[in-house]
Amino acid sequence: MALAPSERVEVRRAPERASYDRNGIDQILDAGFVCHLGFVSPGNGEVNGGGPVVLPTMYARVDHRIYLHGSPASRMLKTLKRPLPVCLTVTHLDGLVYARSAFHHSMNYRSVVVMGRAVEVTDTEEKLGALRALVERFGEGRWDDVRKPSLKEFNKSLVLALALDEASAKIRSGPPVDDDEDLELGVWAGVVPLTLEPGEPVPDPLLPPQIGRPAYLTSKDS
Amino acid sequence: MALAPSERVEVRRAPERASYDRNGIDQILDAGFVCHLGFVSPGNGEVNGGGPVVLPTMYARVDHRIYLHGSPASRMLKTLKRPLPVCLTVTHLDGLVYARSAFHHSMNYRSVVVMGRAVEVTDTEEKLGALRALVERFGEGRWDDVRKPSLKEFNKSLVLALALDEASAKIRSGPPVDDDEDLELGVWAGVVPLTLEPGEPVPDPLLPPQIGRPAYLTSKDS
Repeated sequence: MALAPSERVEVRRAPERASYDRNGIDQILDAGFVCHLGFVSPGNGEVNGGGPVVLPTMYARVDHRIYLHGSPASRMLKTLKRPLPVCLTVTHLDGLVYARSAFHHSMNYRSVVVMGRAVEVTDTEEKLGALRALVERFGEGRWDDVRKPSLKEFNKSLVLALALDEASAKIRSGPPVDDDEDLELGVWAGVVPLTLEPGEPVPDPLLPPQIGRPAYLTSKDS
Repeated sequence: MALAPSERVEVRRAPERASYDRNGIDQILDAGFVCHLGFVSPGNGEVNGGGPVVLPTMYARVDHRIYLHGSPASRMLKTLKRPLPVCLTVTHLDGLVYARSAFHHSMNYRSVVVMGRAVEVTDTEEKLGALRALVERFGEGRWDDVRKPSLKEFNKSLVLALALDEASAKIRSGPPVDDDEDLELGVWAGVVPLTLEPGEPVPDPLLPPQIGRPAYLTSKDS
């Protein structure tokens, strides 16, 4: 299924790298943990009034919506839930692209840009589902393992939802593209792949030694 | 050296995680390749007129300035060089923090937020230095190895500079912080470290086999 690109999420530079395919967009979103959320500070004494603010934050997608969460005291979330227009961007850096010329050095990446207005989730069931989805990003089954939010914690969690109505993906992959006349140069060219790799889990110093790692951690790394 | 935090880059949430130390800010910036650049679209037929736009782009720091580059046809760079206020954010995701309660799950990260206006670099020497710095991010000595920009390429490169006058860092590290009454729960808690790891370099299919890898690639990965 492809989204019709709205004018504002249409990729202008290198449009051959663009995609509006919903499955592709979901895959890029679901592979990430941190998005960069941009909004225009509303001014009137707010931070950077009238100017752009970009902050990293965790997210989780459920179906057609992206969920964000934080403290109700968070300036960012308080500001956004007015609701303000936001631009949510997720980027995976997949590699450094070494060309024979300085000019054609590049990066391989997958990114998604979503525009819209984030609304506060007030429905109890949806809000609990969003918190669950956020915790499940740590491993499938994590939610069942941990202590669920108390009513106090639940009320201390502000959850916002951003619909995936306007989204586009941009992808670069593959080798460098050098000018023909540079191909004879004796310069190494190619790609150094980059991946975000999990290391050996580090137990909390307060964890009793008899508590073993859950399956979603042992299978990931060994 | 610490920057006095201007009001707009002062960290409000979890201020104990904030830092305005210039060395710390530089280290975080220099460890990254991609920033997320936010600006307010000026409207009048521009993409998302009046709204926020956040796009990933490569950058390099030299002393007190961050350099960005792209095509003079790039809407983003053309827009920014007016010059418009920008917010440039760099984030490293260092780990997933597994708490015993859903509520205390978190992430370890290092991030820097820079605010200001990016100006076009028109001085030839500074512009060449910026292009060099961008290519040197691929490996120390890469600039000397490759074909330097032709005059045509040089003129086709738009370089912007953003001064590090207003910047702040925010860092979370270490184990989860659970409530005391949860410490007895039989739930694994700890941190899964995440690092952006370089893989085995993939030579360009057009690369003659006798051209070996440069030192900055062999030493990185083997």
